Amino acid sequence: MNLLDMIDFPSNLRDLDERELQRLVDEVREFVIESVSSTGGHLASNLGVVELSVALHYVFDTPQDRLVWDVGHQCYPHKILTGRKAAMASVRKVGGMAGFPAREESPYDAFGVGHAGTSISAAVGMALGLRGRDARVVAVIGDGSLSAGMAYEALNHAGSCETLPLTIVLNDNRMSISPAVGGLNDHLEALVTRWRDEANVPISTLFETLGLDYVGPIDGHDMANLLATLRDAKTRNRPHVIHVVTKKGKGYRPAELEPVAYHGPSPFKPDTGLVRKKGGKLTYSQVFGQWLCDAAATDERIFGITPAMSEGSCLTGFERRYPDRYIDVGIAEQHAVTLAAGLAVEGMRPVVAIYSTFLQRGYDQLIHDVALQNLPVLFALDRAGIAGGDGATHLGAFDIAALRCVPNMVVMTPSDEKECYRMLNTGLAWPGPCAVRYPRETTGSEVIEQTKETLPLGRGVVCRVSGKRDSARVAFLAFGPLLSVAMEVAREIDATVVDMRFVKPLDEDLLLTVANEHEVIVTIEEGTVLGGAGAACAERIAAEGWAVRMLRLGLPDAFVPHGDRAELLRLNGLGVAGVREAVLAFTEAVDLLDPVE
Amino acid sequence: MNLLDMIDFPSNLRDLDERELQRLVDEVREFVIESVSSTGGHLASNLGVVELSVALHYVFDTPQDRLVWDVGHQCYPHKILTGRKAAMASVRKVGGMAGFPAREESPYDAFGVGHAGTSISAAVGMALGLRGRDARVVAVIGDGSLSAGMAYEALNHAGSCETLPLTIVLNDNRMSISPAVGGLNDHLEALVTRWRDEANVPISTLFETLGLDYVGPIDGHDMANLLATLRDAKTRNRPHVIHVVTKKGKGYRPAELEPVAYHGPSPFKPDTGLVRKKGGKLTYSQVFGQWLCDAAATDERIFGITPAMSEGSCLTGFERRYPDRYIDVGIAEQHAVTLAAGLAVEGMRPVVAIYSTFLQRGYDQLIHDVALQNLPVLFALDRAGIAGGDGATHLGAFDIAALRCVPNMVVMTPSDEKECYRMLNTGLAWPGPCAVRYPRETTGSEVIEQTKETLPLGRGVVCRVSGKRDSARVAFLAFGPLLSVAMEVAREIDATVVDMRFVKPLDEDLLLTVANEHEVIVTIEEGTVLGGAGAACAERIAAEGWAVRMLRLGLPDAFVPHGDRAELLRLNGLGVAGVREAVLAFTEAVDLLDPVE
Repeated sequence: MNLLDMIDFPSNLRDLDERELQRLVDEVREFVIESVSSTGGHLASNLGVVELSVALHYVFDTPQDRLVWDVGHQCYPHKILTGRKAAMASVRKVGGMAGFPAREESPYDAFGVGHAGTSISAAVGMALGLRGRDARVVAVIGDGSLSAGMAYEALNHAGSCETLPLTIVLNDNRMSISPAVGGLNDHLEALVTRWRDEANVPISTLFETLGLDYVGPIDGHDMANLLATLRDAKTRNRPHVIHVVTKKGKGYRPAELEPVAYHGPSPFKPDTGLVRKKGGKLTYSQVFGQWLCDAAATDERIFGITPAMSEGSCLTGFERRYPDRYIDVGIAEQHAVTLAAGLAVEGMRPVVAIYSTFLQRGYDQLIHDVALQNLPVLFALDRAGIAGGDGATHLGAFDIAALRCVPNMVVMTPSDEKECYRMLNTGLAWPGPCAVRYPRETTGSEVIEQTKETLPLGRGVVCRVSGKRDSARVAFLAFGPLLSVAMEVAREIDATVVDMRFVKPLDEDLLLTVANEHEVIVTIEEGTVLGGAGAACAERIAAEGWAVRMLRLGLPDAFVPHGDRAELLRLNGLGVAGVREAVLAFTEAVDLLDPVE
Repeated sequence: MNLLDMIDFPSNLRDLDERELQRLVDEVREFVIESVSSTGGHLASNLGVVELSVALHYVFDTPQDRLVWDVGHQCYPHKILTGRKAAMASVRKVGGMAGFPAREESPYDAFGVGHAGTSISAAVGMALGLRGRDARVVAVIGDGSLSAGMAYEALNHAGSCETLPLTIVLNDNRMSISPAVGGLNDHLEALVTRWRDEANVPISTLFETLGLDYVGPIDGHDMANLLATLRDAKTRNRPHVIHVVTKKGKGYRPAELEPVAYHGPSPFKPDTGLVRKKGGKLTYSQVFGQWLCDAAATDERIFGITPAMSEGSCLTGFERRYPDRYIDVGIAEQHAVTLAAGLAVEGMRPVVAIYSTFLQRGYDQLIHDVALQNLPVLFALDRAGIAGGDGATHLGAFDIAALRCVPNMVVMTPSDEKECYRMLNTGLAWPGPCAVRYPRETTGSEVIEQTKETLPLGRGVVCRVSGKRDSARVAFLAFGPLLSVAMEVAREIDATVVDMRFVKPLDEDLLLTVANEHEVIVTIEEGTVLGGAGAACAERIAAEGWAVRMLRLGLPDAFVPHGDRAELLRLNGLGVAGVREAVLAFTEAVDLLDPVE
């Protein structure tokens, strides 16, 4: 009989004898490998924390004691031990289990997460909120997450709290998704080296300088040591950090050797490991990666900046070819943006490759340091729109609304790979701040045409003209790749289609011309309909006071959850059928209205 | 002859003999006191850095060497020494000198600033951008600013740069605007104590743990020591921190004794000092401060959180009465927001008192930690709209556009102190995230009516009905205190006026009713017209396809500079005359249009 079969909840786990825990650990690890290899998802980080997860639930009285995971790339063992073994089969699927801790999913998920560096802030708040109750809070944060400024802000606060039942577990595997960077990483390296060498040279730790007690380092795969340390932690009433050294990918040899490749793999066979696909349609991210290398080849002013997302943003080629102009700042979006501003001040042309959802972290810096000074920083905004398996925490829905209100910004939305490449050229040539936003999606092409061509600023392009030139009913104004959906529906209902290309500056001439010639305007974008590109069109048309009916299609006023992107687009009415239906229903409703007075 | 009279630019300064510098320092200090006492502005922080400013410009070859000031509360001596002595008379006035460093003002202002913690990021970027050129970069950052996460992110990056001609001057006066807080503060205290006691206990500094060299502490008012240390700094090719201890208010006794009161005083007589006004019309901030105390008296779940703006946000009374529920996190907006989320998870009712411009720093945390989890965090958004003397860096123009697209958010805009109080009640009663945004302005009242009354969610109220009931032309939809301007114009032109109260949820019924009954809708708000509350109305009306002409009044698509708020409102067309004129011009233009088909 499998031990894991008997464990539904931590209470079952706590019934085990301490000597049985290692066997359980092995089983959980095996389960994670089997499960993730069949579904895809996060692997290496989860394998690194199996002992830690078992030990935490064994020692602490979850869910009365609160367990807060940072980022959540390492929550599968936790989910397996808290009633969600079976749900692992549906991880990251529509309607299935979230890939990150989520409060609505389980009382054991004490705080929802997906971005890095939030755990200590949340844990301090929870510990203060629990004051007077007999409960403790444990935050588990990776060394990668610790480069996030907000983690430091929270340490600074915690370090000044005389008493607080707060344990911070530093899960040190020397990695973000990519290897960790920065002075902090060297510091942790020094602490671990001193420990391994059993050297007695005293070093104050970062944590101690901020007023926290420090315990460790300890081996995160040594169960007895973990248990003893966590039991000790339970007795501490001052905030403290336990430095736990783990190995990303632990127990699955290929993942230990290649933790980056096995960070978030697609399904694979455990015996043979990952199959690397070669060729195939390029993603927008790859188009960007290629463009950056091409542009840097002839423009020495270009710097490529990433906040710890080199692989995701396809910067590995650039890093290899232009190491002197490649900067991975770690999980530090605020710094990434203002660093770029500093480079731009000195005549450089920084390109910040960043996911839409993570630029939220640098919003003030974009406004205050880049846009206000009108500096030529180019933002390559990846994962704009629905986030796929990563779900609501990674939703790239808000960038259009948040950026188009910022003075001096240019915001572009390419509808295909050719436009994407040209828009990046356009942004590079523009002497002010620009964003090119593109989705987590493959393009229609396997190769990219290299060109220096730029697009005329603030000009859209008519892609299809309704046959009924004089009595045309419907015109689509498309912002981004959903243009293809608009085209398909337009062919069916004989509508006009415009690729607007620019959210800002908006092509007002074209907008008004089209509005003048059509009865119904349909805007379509992969971003929130509130304040988005369609809203920009509505603003302009309302100012004219024309009787144009306007249907704004886009992401709803809700957090779109995890799942397959195409499926989620369909579910949100942005597939061909959904768009057709919405447009027909709208035009029908329009017919029922009184004629405009 | 005054030495300062001979100094127009740092080149003149460098002609002086080193022994003359102290005399110059005394003159600059005197000039700052005279000048600020007559204009108002930042005082105590400027008095603390006179020696440092003189020494930096004496030793470094500005502007070829770049001098980056953090926040900029301490830039007056710098401005005085770089061609702007005379301009001091116009500081913070419309068309006058900015109160913060600004690139467009002088080549000596190497990087524009106003928010805290940006200097190291910018300086690292500039140093990288200057690669191969013979120039150095100096960032001057206060200990208060160092609590900002982005400063840490930048230190982490700098600490990993083997060579970089970067000097970071830590201007340690143990203050933000209020006394500094947090573990970092205790750490700096320990370093200074050890130095003063001439103790030999070795302590590693935070900076060294992050890989930077550390020099100091040194006395920031000892000119010889400063010069020697800065000369040494010029020879260093690794990033390093010079810990300079200064006294806020130095040389003006009242400011030394009360650095908080003299941080940013109104005009005063140097001989007699500040005159404290008592009574008078309450500001919106004071209404909030009173409300928070009133609410906390009967609701133990309330916590008041400020990112180092206790005075500005009027939390000093709350701090005194409820010290256990008052949290000043330092300049750490990201942490403030997620800390609040953690408190809310445990059933508390955190109130985050934050300026609109600083909430930009916590935008991701608001979306990801608060709104996504639909947690009841109440944001008291101060300084929403034009920032007055602080200018473009503090502009509170973007919050409506940035917040209304976030799912689950409720956004309220009180038009007077009574509504403000009731909206705070309403937000507290609401089980999800809310923002109440109000301006840097006095209300019409000297006392506040204490009440438990709440407002119906998402409902506006009609304040005035046009006499021409059936042929009414113009209706104002007001969001916030500009309601009073709308009322005044409406009385003149017999227009309808609605106080919309809620940006989100928008009162769609009322909006459509009014739109149906009027020919022209005029929205008015103290926020950007792009994507703002007026845009929300335009979206809704456009969806109906009604032929309603809509004029959206609000802040322009530009960074509004510094100056008197009322004057800037007028200059931006938001005074009574401007609004009247805009409405009449619009209705006239409407008459010239073809009748709607």
